[in-house]
Parts: sequence; C-alpha cells; structure tokens
Amino acid sequence: MAGPKEDPTSRCCFSVICFFTLCVGVAVGVVIGMYVLCDDHGDDTTRPPTVEMYRDTIPDDTLQAILSGVSKTKIEDNLSVVREIGGQFRGYSGFGSVVREIGGQFRGYTGFDSVEQGAGPQDLQLLEGCWSGRCPNSGIRRTTVLPDTENPNIVSLLDNTGNPIYSSPKTEKILTPEENKTGVVPPFLAFAKAGVVQGDLVYVNYGRVEDYVTLSNNSINVTNKVVLARYGGIFRGDIVSIASLHGASGVIIYSDPHDYAPDNTTRPYPNSWWLPPSGTQRGTIDTGNGDPLTPGYPATETAYRIQEKAVDPPLPSIPAHAIDAEVAEKILSYLAGPPAPPEWRGDLNVTYNLGPSFRDGMKVQLNVSTRNKQSRISDVVGVIQGAEEPDRYVILGNHRDAWVFGAMDPSGGTAIMLEISRTLKHAINTTSWRPRRSIILCSWDAEEYGLFGSTEFVEEYVKTLTTRAVAYLNVDIAVQGQYSVSIGGSPLLYRTALSATQQVYIHTCGGVGGSLYCTKQHCRPHNRYGNLGSGSDFTNMRCQAGVPVLDFSYIYDVTKWDIASYPLYHSEYETFYAVKNFVDGNFTYHRAIGQLWLALALELTDSAILPFNLSDYAETMSRLKEQLVADKGDVLDRYLPGYDANLTQVIDEFTEAAASFMAQVAGTSTSKPLVVRKLNDQLLQLERAFLDPHGLPGRSYYRHILFAPSSHNQYAAASFPGLVDLLFDIKDSDTSQWEKVKQHFSVILFTIQSATSTLRDVIHFM
Amino acid sequence: MAGPKEDPTSRCCFSVICFFTLCVGVAVGVVIGMYVLCDDHGDDTTRPPTVEMYRDTIPDDTLQAILSGVSKTKIEDNLSVVREIGGQFRGYSGFGSVVREIGGQFRGYTGFDSVEQGAGPQDLQLLEGCWSGRCPNSGIRRTTVLPDTENPNIVSLLDNTGNPIYSSPKTEKILTPEENKTGVVPPFLAFAKAGVVQGDLVYVNYGRVEDYVTLSNNSINVTNKVVLARYGGIFRGDIVSIASLHGASGVIIYSDPHDYAPDNTTRPYPNSWWLPPSGTQRGTIDTGNGDPLTPGYPATETAYRIQEKAVDPPLPSIPAHAIDAEVAEKILSYLAGPPAPPEWRGDLNVTYNLGPSFRDGMKVQLNVSTRNKQSRISDVVGVIQGAEEPDRYVILGNHRDAWVFGAMDPSGGTAIMLEISRTLKHAINTTSWRPRRSIILCSWDAEEYGLFGSTEFVEEYVKTLTTRAVAYLNVDIAVQGQYSVSIGGSPLLYRTALSATQQVYIHTCGGVGGSLYCTKQHCRPHNRYGNLGSGSDFTNMRCQAGVPVLDFSYIYDVTKWDIASYPLYHSEYETFYAVKNFVDGNFTYHRAIGQLWLALALELTDSAILPFNLSDYAETMSRLKEQLVADKGDVLDRYLPGYDANLTQVIDEFTEAAASFMAQVAGTSTSKPLVVRKLNDQLLQLERAFLDPHGLPGRSYYRHILFAPSSHNQYAAASFPGLVDLLFDIKDSDTSQWEKVKQHFSVILFTIQSATSTLRDVIHFM
Repeated sequence: MAGPKEDPTSRCCFSVICFFTLCVGVAVGVVIGMYVLCDDHGDDTTRPPTVEMYRDTIPDDTLQAILSGVSKTKIEDNLSVVREIGGQFRGYSGFGSVVREIGGQFRGYTGFDSVEQGAGPQDLQLLEGCWSGRCPNSGIRRTTVLPDTENPNIVSLLDNTGNPIYSSPKTEKILTPEENKTGVVPPFLAFAKAGVVQGDLVYVNYGRVEDYVTLSNNSINVTNKVVLARYGGIFRGDIVSIASLHGASGVIIYSDPHDYAPDNTTRPYPNSWWLPPSGTQRGTIDTGNGDPLTPGYPATETAYRIQEKAVDPPLPSIPAHAIDAEVAEKILSYLAGPPAPPEWRGDLNVTYNLGPSFRDGMKVQLNVSTRNKQSRISDVVGVIQGAEEPDRYVILGNHRDAWVFGAMDPSGGTAIMLEISRTLKHAINTTSWRPRRSIILCSWDAEEYGLFGSTEFVEEYVKTLTTRAVAYLNVDIAVQGQYSVSIGGSPLLYRTALSATQQVYIHTCGGVGGSLYCTKQHCRPHNRYGNLGSGSDFTNMRCQAGVPVLDFSYIYDVTKWDIASYPLYHSEYETFYAVKNFVDGNFTYHRAIGQLWLALALELTDSAILPFNLSDYAETMSRLKEQLVADKGDVLDRYLPGYDANLTQVIDEFTEAAASFMAQVAGTSTSKPLVVRKLNDQLLQLERAFLDPHGLPGRSYYRHILFAPSSHNQYAAASFPGLVDLLFDIKDSDTSQWEKVKQHFSVILFTIQSATSTLRDVIHFM
Repeated sequence: MAGPKEDPTSRCCFSVICFFTLCVGVAVGVVIGMYVLCDDHGDDTTRPPTVEMYRDTIPDDTLQAILSGVSKTKIEDNLSVVREIGGQFRGYSGFGSVVREIGGQFRGYTGFDSVEQGAGPQDLQLLEGCWSGRCPNSGIRRTTVLPDTENPNIVSLLDNTGNPIYSSPKTEKILTPEENKTGVVPPFLAFAKAGVVQGDLVYVNYGRVEDYVTLSNNSINVTNKVVLARYGGIFRGDIVSIASLHGASGVIIYSDPHDYAPDNTTRPYPNSWWLPPSGTQRGTIDTGNGDPLTPGYPATETAYRIQEKAVDPPLPSIPAHAIDAEVAEKILSYLAGPPAPPEWRGDLNVTYNLGPSFRDGMKVQLNVSTRNKQSRISDVVGVIQGAEEPDRYVILGNHRDAWVFGAMDPSGGTAIMLEISRTLKHAINTTSWRPRRSIILCSWDAEEYGLFGSTEFVEEYVKTLTTRAVAYLNVDIAVQGQYSVSIGGSPLLYRTALSATQQVYIHTCGGVGGSLYCTKQHCRPHNRYGNLGSGSDFTNMRCQAGVPVLDFSYIYDVTKWDIASYPLYHSEYETFYAVKNFVDGNFTYHRAIGQLWLALALELTDSAILPFNLSDYAETMSRLKEQLVADKGDVLDRYLPGYDANLTQVIDEFTEAAASFMAQVAGTSTSKPLVVRKLNDQLLQLERAFLDPHGLPGRSYYRHILFAPSSHNQYAAASFPGLVDLLFDIKDSDTSQWEKVKQHFSVILFTIQSATSTLRDVIHFM
C-alpha cells in the first residue's frame, strides 16, 4: 500500500546520494556500462528515498565488496545440486539428503557459529497430507475411506449406466528427460478429504464468493453437486471452503490456458514457460497455518493434539482434486446447462456451459484416495554470531520443500541462500568485518502444506523472537521472470528496502541498466510496496511474533501478462530446464535477488540505530484509515458515530510521537552503547506493539491489528483485518455482530495508543 | 514456599559477610548496642544467604547513608497528614486532596523527573461499588432495586407477622474522637447485589467448600436461605460466591471475637488493638481484578464495555452485607436447629445453632441498597530517571484508597512511600549518586474494590512493563505488629530479598536486636518465603505482565495469635490512634519497612547484573513438582502416565540451563555494557517466559503457569494453578475435563521448555 513517497527531507540528502551513486557507478561501471544507464538522479518518480536514521553502518565499499562476491555460477551449481538430489517432496526418499546437504553446507562454511539441524522442529509430529501409495501404515489418523494404494486420485466420466467412459491420467506427461524420474508426486491437493463422490457438475468460474452470487442469479445451485473451478482468482483452499459452504459434494480445479498459457503465438513448455495442456497445479487446501492438531503451540513429542473435528479453521470436509486442461476440456465438452457468462469463458475448445447436468445422462465421479498421516519435518537453521549484539537477530528465510522439482518454488531461493551463506563465510574469514548483530538463515520445511516449518518454529520460539528478532526477510520464489523487483512488507522497512535496491545493479526491462531501485522505478513507476497477504513463511513471524517482515521476488512482466502466477507454478514442469531456458539463463536475476537479500541483511545487522522509519508507519496508518472510510464509512457512521474522529486522533498522536522519536534519534550520538540500545529496543518493539495479545476476532493466532491475510482469500492482504472480517456481509439486523464491531474497534484504538506509548521517552510513557 | 536454603556456595562468602557485617555493625552500633545482639554469624539457621551474581552494585556505605536518612518522625508526620485529609474513601470529598497531596509531594521533591497524576488511569471510567446515600444519580448501570438513599444496608429480625423486632445499626459506634468525622463510610460489601431477601438462616462457619460438605452431612441445605458466615477462613468474595453456588439467597458475614478478639485478658479497642463488638469488616466481594466491564483492556474513555451479565467471573448475584459481633450474637441467639460442631463455635454468648429456622417463627431480613456506578480513579506515578538504563524500571507500589481511615491499610505504606520519595530526592540532590536504572513510585487507586488501579495500569502499559520492568515491590499494609518481617514473591528475588534484610537493623521480638534477617531467623526460623496469593497490587504485575514481584510487611506475633488478619482490619477503628497506641508508637517498624523497601529498590537499580538467582527458581519448581506428586500423584498416574518423568525432565533441563547461565555470568566482566545488557535481558525476561500467552484454563488474564491466586480462595496461592483448578473435584467420568488436564499439562511442559530456551546462549536457543 505504501508507495515510494516524496519526502521533503529527502532533498537535503540529494547531493550525498549523488556522490555515493557516482562512486558506486565507477566501481561497477564495467558491468553497467554495457547497458543504457538508468538515471538515479532523474525526475521525481526516480528520486531515491532516504532513511534519515541511517548512519554509522557498514561502509559502502565493504558492502559492495561483499555483494560482489555473490556468484551466478555458484547459484546455478547449487540449484543443480538441489535438483539432482531429487524431488524433495515431503517424505520422498531424496528429502533427507537435501537436509543433510544444506546442513552440511552451512556447517562447511566455518563462518557459522551454530547450525541446528533437527533440533526443535525436526522432531515434531505433524499432520500432513500424503498421496496415495506413499503413506506408511503407521500413524494414520484418518481411517475413513482408505485409499487404494495402487491408484492415485482420479476424475472419471460415467455413462448413464454408471460405467466409466473416460478417466483422468494418473500422472503428468513427461515432456523433457528431466521429468523422467522415479518418485514424482502425482497431482493432488493436500488435506483433501478422501472419498468417492459422483453426480452432476457445475462450472463455478474462479470459485469466488461473487461467482456463486452469479450462479444463484441464474438459478443454479451447487448443493450435492461436484463443482469445477479454474485456478487464477483466489487461493485454492478458499475455492474449496467456499464450495463446501455452498453445499458442494466435491471440488475439481483446473488450469485454463486463458490463465496459464494466454500467449497464442508461442507453444507451451517445453518450448516456453507457458503451462502445457497436461500441466497440473498441486497445492494445499488447508486454510490454517501450521500443524492443525496443535494450534498455538509447537508440535513437540509431548504436545497435546486436538481432535480433527475440533480443527479451526476446519480441515476440508469434501473430496477435492486438481486436473489439467485436457481433462477439464473433456469434462466441459459433455456438460449441458446454460452457457456461462462471457467473462467466465476460458480458452478451451468448448462452450463453457454451467451444468449441472451432462449430456446423455452422464455423471462425473471424483475419487480421492489422499489421506493424512503424521510425519516429521526438519527446519535447518544456521546462525552467524553478531560481534556486538549477538542477541539481536536478522533472520533470512526460505522454504525447502517443493511439490515436485520446484526449481523456482522454492529452490531458486534455496540455491541463493546457500550462496549467501558461502559469501558471508568468505567475508568473515578473509576480512576484519563481522556483522554487528547475528544473522540467522532458516531453511523451512513443509511450507507448501500450510507454512508448517515456520509456523511451528515461531510457536516454539515466539518469546525469543518477540524479544530479539530485528526483522525477517523472506524469499519464496526468488525469480519468476526478468522484469522488475517486487517488494512488500512492514512500513517500518519501506525505506531500508528501497535503499537496499540502490545497492544492487542490473540491466532489465528492455536493456535499461542501473540500480534495482532505478530499474524498478523505470519499469513499474506506479507499483507500490505492498502490505503482503499470506502464502509464505513471513506470516507467523509478523502476525504471531510481531517481527517486521519483508518479502521479495524478481517478477515477470506483469504489465504485459495479467496472470495469477508464473504458468508452471506447482506443476511437474517447474524444472531446472525451465529456469535455464525460459526464466534466468545465466542466473543474473538470481544473483540480483541474492545481493538484495544480503544488502538488506547487512544494513539491518550493521546500522548502529535500526533503520526503521516510523513516519512511514504513521503515513501508512493514515492511508489505511482513509481506505477504511472510503470502503466502509457509510455503515460505520451509522453504528460507530465518531469512529473517524477517534481513529484520526489516535493516528495523529502516533504521528506526533513518531516525529518526536525521529527527532530524538537525530540528536543522539551513537557512541554510547546503552543510549543506542534503548532507542533500538523501542524501535525493535514497535511492530510488536501492534499485536493484540488476545488475537483477532475468531482468529486468535493472528494478532496484528493492522495487517493479516484476508479471511476470504489467503493470498490477499487485509488492512484492519479484524474489522474488515466482522463487517463482511454484515446486516443492520446483526445486533451481536455489531457489538463485536464496536468491541474490536475499541481494541484498534487502544492498540494504536499503546504503540504510541512505547515510542514516548522512556520516563514519560504514560 | 522457598525457605532460606543452605547453599554450599554460601560458605565461601562467609568471611566476606563477616567483615561486612562487622563494619556495618560499627556504623549502627549506637542504635543496636542498646539491645541484645542477634548474631548474624550464628548457627545454620541464621547463616545469611548470598546472591552469587551480586557484584558491581551500590557501595555499602552509600546504601547505608541513604537508608539512614529514612526518618521515623517524617513517616509519622506523613501518616498524620494523610489521616487529616480525610477518610480517603473513593468518591469521598477528601479523596481528591490526597491525590493532590501525594502528587504535590512527589513534585516537590525535585529529584523526580516525571510525575504523572491523572494521565492514564485518572481518566478511566470504572465500575465500582458505592454505598447508599452517596451515589450521584448519573452513570448508574444497575437500575434494579434502587436503594433508599436515606437508609444504608440493614439486617433485621422479623417476628412471625413480619414486623421488625430488631435492626442492625447503620454505623459503627464512635469510640475515640478520631472517628467522629463526617463522611465515614457505613459498613457494606462492595459489588453486593442490591435487594431485599428474607427467610430462614443457616450458620455456615467460615463459608468454605468443606463447611457446606459438613452441612450436607447434617442434612442441612442452604437453598433459598440466608447464610451467616464468620470472617477468618477465606476471602469474603469466595464466601459469597460459594454460598451463591449452593443456592443461598443472601449472605451475612460477621467478625467473631474468637477470631478477632481472642485475648480474654485485654479489653478491645480503644483499649487495645482487638476488634470491639461494634467493629465491622468492610471489603469487596468481587472475585475478579480490575474493571469488570473492560476485561483485559484498560477502561479508557473509548473502551468497549461488556454487559454486566457477561462479566466473568460473574459479579455477585445475591445480596450480601457485613455486620458486627453484637448483631451476629442477636441473630444467633434466636436461631434454632441442631447445634454446630464444636470447632464451628466462636466466642459469642450463644449456642451456635445451625438453623435454618428461628425460634417463634421469626425470620431474618437482609436489605442491601448498595448499587454500582461508574466513577473515575487516579493512580499517581512518580519517576526518577536512571542514570545509565532509564528504560529499566524498578517499581514500588502501594495503594492509596482505604475503607475508612485506613491508618494501617494502606496509609502506613503511603506515609513510607512519601518518605522514600523525600529520601531519594535528598540523596540525588546532595550526592553524586543517582540510580543506574529508573525508579517508579506508584500510588494506586481503588485497590480495595479489586485491584482496580494497578490492574488498569498493567492492562494499559503491559507492553512497556513486559519489556522494561525489572521488578515490582509491593507494600500494602506496612506494619501490622512488632514481631518479624514477612516476605514473599518470585523465587528470582528470594536471595536479594534476604540480602536486603541484612542491610536493615532493628530490635524486635523481646528486645533482640540485629538485622531484619537475623531477627526474622530468630523469631521465625521455620517461616518460609511464600509464593503469594492475590489480595494486593502485585497480582497483575506478575500474572499478566510477568514481572518478578515481592510483597512484604512487618507482622504481629503469628506464633502467638492464630488470626486471619490484624483485628481492626477494614473497620472504622483502623485509626492513627490505633497505630500510635498499639502498633508502632515511635514508628520504628515503619522506618524498618521503609529502609527494606529502599534497600531492595537500590540493590535492583544499581547491580550491574540483575541480582536474580535462577537456581532458586529451578529448586522452587522441583519443590512444586514434588508437592503436585504428593497431592495428585495417584490420580495423575492413571490419566497422564509418565507425567512425573516428563515434568522431571523439563525441570532438569531448566536446572541445567540455569546453572550454565549462572556460570556464564560468573565469568563475565561487567565492563562491557552490551554484554551485561544481553545477560540482563535474559534475566529480565525469565519470569515472562513462564507466561502462557493464551492464559490459564478459564482464566485467560492469569497467564503465569506456575503461580496464581487460588480459584477457591483468592487470599491463597496455588502452584501449577491451571492444573490444580482443573483437578479440583474431578471425577473419573469427567472425560472432557480430563482432556483439558492433558492439554494444560502439555502447555506446562512446553512453557518450562520455552523458559529454558530463553536462558541458553543467545545463538543456541534451539
């Protein structure tokens, strides 16, 4: 939400930055000289931001020397190694090797002071999905409808006598030699309920709440029917839960070429990065985070496990499966009923009827043999001890588990993290530099199932993280294309993020060369620093532990392609071959992400005063408030008279306290360690101050009152999420719901006031 | 629970302490030479404890110089001034003057860097009790049975035609000129439900759960009957809630001479400190803490207020009133039914029948006109800025509100706090000394209603307190007698507490002179440092914010008098006259408490490394575990097999981590501020690490898994309180309750593990 802002104070730093940019420009001139130069001193849209408090930090030449050590070749080698170890699927035999490889590499880099592999979460027992045929019989929790271990999930068409006339393939087709491996995971949706359902089918477009409104307006309901949805609108877990709420008996989700191969001029994979007709997107449909059986606590050996029926949000209650476009086309070709609205039609060679009946009395059958079992997961954690404040952590995280080969999601990030660990080790071993604060590298497990590795880690160490973690820097899918960097996260880190993008040089979007900052401004001048939804491992760091987070990625040309994700996402075709041929052939963008990650980390470890900008937080809050007024003002005015004035007042008080604090910092010498530590502790605790210890209404483990994943689409971010949830679909007659609105609104006011209090001079906190 | 322990390491410090004691002995020789010397170097029972980490702190001579400035005369003057201002009752006209007086005195002592009077909680709206005739008509929440404003609560006896033949007096008798003031509060129980009930009456002894078992065994039930209980067993709020659970229609509580004037050889007040027959104990019967309408959040102007019916624990649902012994004797003299068991009989001149019927068809009538209203309260907070770590707070607290004159509860403590503020100001203004950390003096409001002032303060500033407060030192009733000091609190502070008692000299218990430590050992060798129940303002500091707390008092001879409190407690006769004539004529013991308070504060502000002993915490946990095994082992073995081994293991791990940490501290130089701060932050956070963020089962605002007030008697402490509550009265058939036991037990295990984790070296926390 917070875009690059034109702060008047930035003008005074203009010449300093000119000089800095010039110096660095010389150093990297050889590289960037080859390209058209992007001008960091250009018009207003490219003027660099400043971090006012940013002094007494790592010298630019030291930083540049470290960054220059990040090697494209080594990242490529790492990705190749991780790829060679195997599919990395949870429970897959190659998995243990990846853990050992990463732990071994962390250990091998002697700059590491601590490598924990298997301590803590390794010994956790987690509820997880598995695909049929691969579940050992021990520890099974669900015994209903045990799957035929020889037969993966299948979608069939039945004739009017109930005999199958068509069945979906069990696996994706092998299109390059790289996919020709044993142990490839067939398509499935983790946590789908096992079972066989058959009957009529309704096409529900993207499966959003509004799509069901459209169906209802067309007098079509889905009760006791299988629904067919296409990927591309919302999180698949929400597709299933919304369908379930509408009474559907089962869910089938497919990838329409309209959304995953819209470029008619190019043949899909293996000729391009577009998803081929046999490509299928796997994924979890759990809408919770972490082990569903141990909410709020780590899943240790002695943890108490709740009953599955008590899980909240509930586990999926209906069978669900993912299919490819070819199967979907087959199904839709037999579907009768009225034609779908024009905007519901994709690019398959069918008319897109809505159903619910098939031609000739046919039916669809969905056979899901997926079941859940407990198994162990392993986070691998490496620590580089800070020289002066070892008890302050800058945490870098990336998950390690993948659906199949995962060369982009997440292994590009894993390969970069390994290279960062090598680079840091080299810098520490060959120079006098050591980070002021500690750096922690985390290789998370089981992210794909619902952020398991990071959630359990946060649940286990929340007290330590809350008191010691400075920031969490997440990379999930490092490189999706060659267009521009995309960054989002806490308003506190906004300026530091932009400042770090000025430290990294690249050529991009049509041969324009310059800093990541400059090229981003050039390519996407109106792109905003986002508030982040869920969908990756920063969620619990932020919403449960109150740690400021950043998440970033190098993205494809989003101005050209209006697609929900890169096309091969979660399919078998997300291969090293694809990365090498269609995404980042010489690993330039992988290196840029690695350099950005490292630059961010070192600015956060080495700045004497934490480079957090409080005024940006204040400004963001004001913007959130304006948005709330615009979206919900009418209804709030009726039930919460004066709400705008009350909210404005507490935000104004925060803004004032933030300005005073920044002024105090500006006048502080960094020579007195305890004075600096006092200010840093206030900065460190600020994000935490926006946590309500009692949690959001109905979601007690999300505690941040300003930011949370939307309840209706986990991929999206919601601001004032508790309020937005309570107001969703509220009616004037919902008296008790309105009481909850009033109650939560008072919590928002108090929480902002309490954050303001923490910023006041420490002997005037009242 | 943790008594003075004989630690082998104390032997090596023996000669150091000999020397120290000798030096100090000379300095104060003039004073103590007058008395028989208590030998600090005596046998094992009087050997002083040591605080191993206790180095680099305030020099002994500086400390002694500051302590010697505490003046008996000035404390007496302060008490006299506070007394003269008026009854201090909440809403009483003199109340505002007390606030101004204390705020003014804080301000007048220019050593204070910040005095907040009215910021924060002053502007709170709180639900509170008021007595009939004194409630303004605005802001009334309860409208049922509005009281006759001319008539205070009355207990009457009715003849068989329903005509009153006897009514209780509206006020306590005036026995000395001091009580002859306007505005004296007639007896009442705050939060009693207004109403008139009449009928039969049952005498229920102390009104404990076991007393109802006895009645039931005698085939007497109390349903729809008024019960008469005597003070002296449990918290009066629990008397009412237990009676209510048993179906009683109303509750009358009186003070039996057996419990409040057991010394037959002495005439009561105004001839001694024994409660006279007209003495009545007021008090709250709310079993919650803080404003019942704003649970978990401060009662600010914009706070959401829940409905009274949603209050949890519920507000009293039946009328209740307190009476004196004369009225009780009258009632009991007419009561029929079987005679009470011998141990139920007090010293009234009656046979103590159980009821429920009266002679001659008489009935009792209870008319309670008490109602609740909102009004404002004011905490007064003074801050002395620390020289090196202003963001670390040592907090001293005492409440200011009293039921009537409150010369002992709490004004003795208030008078001492004012003298401490003067002493500190004098030391800062006349020497180069200034405390290393900040000192905060808090004068709480509305403690008597249910810890309102301190609870709302903690709720408002919990984030600040959790991150910055080093310790909270509470004095409620400073001096109750001349026998010995009594101390309880966090195991972390055990050794510091005993160490501070060695800094203060006094003569006591039969003319024996020496340090408070020595005399305590002499008078009460087997007295233990307790775990603390509720009943004063430390509760939320500890149970909600996780701040280590201490509470202390100079007590009467508890070996001689087995009474529940000093006799005049909460009566109109708790006067300056009583203090001067029967409690502490020359204010020697008030000064000793003031010196102890100050010595504790300065040891906590000035020790470079916080003087917290982790091994004592480990040892206390082991002791709590042994107690649990002894009390509940049989039943736990059946339902939680292996519970003992699991608990032993996590406590052993904690013990080991604690020992490693202490060893690390012993090898640390205090010359590096950030190294010291790192260790101190770990020490500071340790008590917090025992908080479960989700709270105890059914009591979400009590979050400490080891210590909480008992659910069945707020005055008592419970260890593993969540477990003890869940196991209370559990039956084998309570399947879902047993699941809660298992769940909470796993939370206990994890919470101890998480505390251990915070103690590990900061780069090996996993």
